Amino acid sequence: MIYITRRERFNAAHRLFREDYSDEKNLEVFGQCSNPNWHGHNYELFVTVKGTISKETGFLVNLKDLSSIIKEKVIRKIDHKNINLEVDFMQGKYASTENLTVSIFEELKNAVAKLGAELHAVKIYESENNYVEYFG
Amino acid sequence: MIYITRRERFNAAHRLFREDYSDEKNLEVFGQCSNPNWHGHNYELFVTVKGTISKETGFLVNLKDLSSIIKEKVIRKIDHKNINLEVDFMQGKYASTENLTVSIFEELKNAVAKLGAELHAVKIYESENNYVEYFG
Amino acid sequence: MIYITRRERFNAAHRLFREDYSDEKNLEVFGQCSNPNWHGHNYELFVTVKGTISKETGFLVNLKDLSSIIKEKVIRKIDHKNINLEVDFMQGKYASTENLTVSIFEELKNAVAKLGAELHAVKIYESENNYVEYFG
Amino acid sequence: MIYITRRERFNAAHRLFREDYSDEKNLEVFGQCSNPNWHGHNYELFVTVKGTISKETGFLVNLKDLSSIIKEKVIRKIDHKNINLEVDFMQGKYASTENLTVSIFEELKNAVAKLGAELHAVKIYESENNYVEYFG
Amino acid sequence: MIYITRRERFNAAHRLFREDYSDEKNLEVFGQCSNPNWHGHNYELFVTVKGTISKETGFLVNLKDLSSIIKEKVIRKIDHKNINLEVDFMQGKYASTENLTVSIFEELKNAVAKLGAELHAVKIYESENNYVEYFG
Amino acid sequence: MIYITRRERFNAAHRLFREDYSDEKNLEVFGQCSNPNWHGHNYELFVTVKGTISKETGFLVNLKDLSSIIKEKVIRKIDHKNINLEVDFMQGKYASTENLTVSIFEELKNAVAKLGAELHAVKIYESENNYVEYFG
Repeated sequence: MIYITRRERFNAAHRLFREDYSDEKNLEVFGQCSNPNWHGHNYELFVTVKGTISKETGFLVNLKDLSSIIKEKVIRKIDHKNINLEVDFMQGKYASTENLTVSIFEELKNAVAKLGAELHAVKIYESENNYVEYFG
Repeated sequence: MIYITRRERFNAAHRLFREDYSDEKNLEVFGQCSNPNWHGHNYELFVTVKGTISKETGFLVNLKDLSSIIKEKVIRKIDHKNINLEVDFMQGKYASTENLTVSIFEELKNAVAKLGAELHAVKIYESENNYVEYFG
Repeated sequence: MIYITRRERFNAAHRLFREDYSDEKNLEVFGQCSNPNWHGHNYELFVTVKGTISKETGFLVNLKDLSSIIKEKVIRKIDHKNINLEVDFMQGKYASTENLTVSIFEELKNAVAKLGAELHAVKIYESENNYVEYFG
Repeated sequence: MIYITRRERFNAAHRLFREDYSDEKNLEVFGQCSNPNWHGHNYELFVTVKGTISKETGFLVNLKDLSSIIKEKVIRKIDHKNINLEVDFMQGKYASTENLTVSIFEELKNAVAKLGAELHAVKIYESENNYVEYFG
Repeated sequence: MIYITRRERFNAAHRLFREDYSDEKNLEVFGQCSNPNWHGHNYELFVTVKGTISKETGFLVNLKDLSSIIKEKVIRKIDHKNINLEVDFMQGKYASTENLTVSIFEELKNAVAKLGAELHAVKIYESENNYVEYFG
Repeated sequence: MIYITRRERFNAAHRLFREDYSDEKNLEVFGQCSNPNWHGHNYELFVTVKGTISKETGFLVNLKDLSSIIKEKVIRKIDHKNINLEVDFMQGKYASTENLTVSIFEELKNAVAKLGAELHAVKIYESENNYVEYFG
């Protein structure tokens, strides 16, 4: 079993808040991240897949194919977008990094399987001090 | 003459656009950065000051004082904010990294002089691939 | 199960040595790290906690709370200190990164549990070329 | 059980190709990496070993010993070399990062055991966007 | 006057040697870098341009245009190539980072001028420990 | 004129204080950095030299020679040492990064000249947030 990880990046705006909370209550629970006028991040996305090495190519998967899948399923939809308003796979969810990580895992799972590998982990850096990981 | 640089960070939303352009024209000129629903970045801000070393302390400036000035004049106003809508020193300007860099230089210039040093440069990383510098 | 990691940093002095060894013997076993006049590092501390996402907030834990715990239990005691002489949770132990990592895990374990998460791992970078991990 | 990781680096040339493929077929399968005139990388190698902390030294292993083993078994043979033509442990294998990672794991396994630790993982960064891990 | 820098990356093989030297003499003068079977690097290229901010766009130059020029004039020719054998602007020159930096500056100078800016500097990282800068 | 920079690293302990101040006064002026039991850092040292490219080698200087000089004149004396107590070129000076940068510049100036280049700058990172530069 071998593991290979591809990094992609996206920039996006978001806001952490509950619609049923007042702005004051949102500020209390979510802090600065609840700013009604949005803020944003340079997100780093690490996608790890696992499987066996092909005897024909020496590859687990072709990284170009893995990169294409991540771009089609995730980056195209979220880069330079507003996560709360514009990203289909985040509709109806709080735009926390935890929810984002789980949702991206679900977006990628089947497409990775079609490459002949298994999705092992999705990891997202929101800042140099914080990251979230999900293993399914 | 010695130079000392302090890094601070902020996360913010912004949009590149002209009000007198249509969304289509904005998209043509500013690309994805003109998304009407905003996007955002983790900005890294490098402030370089210059001067002579104090014989009393061995310092050019006390870095805590320099950091405090940057936080009061810049970070407090821009971190977790919308650059177009909420930042006083960016009012009436396009929210490009170029304009942001010049504006932060102007914000800091006099306050640095009061510390007994001269503001040499402001440098802003918008992403790992792009940065802007201004020397006054 | 979701995993979230917070990075904090501290700068400290230390020395690797045994009191029952001569300086020569310490130099032989511990190398330059046994210098009787101390040396030091910029340590990077990564604390990983795991658990389930709150339906109320979309968070595993509030990162501000996690950061506060790390600062109170670890950073406040060790930053700009001498690990051998001044850090209560390192008393009577060799100041190796291995022992430091285990000790910080033990310091944080119960406090993380009170946040409603489980401490998964502590990882310490002593230099860009070396790091230690402990999973309890 | 404690885990310690040592990073070493090497620069090397390589080519991804099958001898039984034409240059055109190699280009189709392996892309730019099949260039007959070679290309190269700055590889970063992370070697993780695990075991128990020595009561005598506070160490899992002496990092100088671990570094020496990696240099003797791997770096000396591959740094500033052509992976396809000159590296004994890669003879007869495609020079993919996957195969390189597995081969380095096999090179190091017994030597690490002699230090009194167990080889846990080998991880190789081929670029800032791609890395491969193998756990045996 | 404002300065903006764009980073691009390329991977390439090269060899430092003089044809009129023996392999032994090349080894003595150029060290491991003279390996006749080549070695390679992940190069990081930083291109800095300077000029005035456009009142129409708030930009010095459109970074997409700058990136396109760098890709057309440099990256397309050198990425995944052998610098000694395949790169037109390096023909007849030793493949040192110094010569590479000067040559890329010359490649880019006129094209940057057509964007309405002036080429200020080219900087190349050959490894995390070495970089070369040229200002024309 | 071409510029080449070499990075070297060292780990050291230090303390910022004046002997004629009380511990309280030192704490007030120098903050945590005045801890009488020392603290320490992983310092990163960047040495930039300038000159013309040799027609014989394509080099400005041989980086191995530059690295050897830095190691002999600086790293050997300061790595894993106490800057206040053990470093000859810091005797009688406050151990601030400013003074350290100037002193290392003076240590290296003549030795770089003997290589046939001119010392342009010394830059020291004390942490990821602070660095000092000196140009002579």
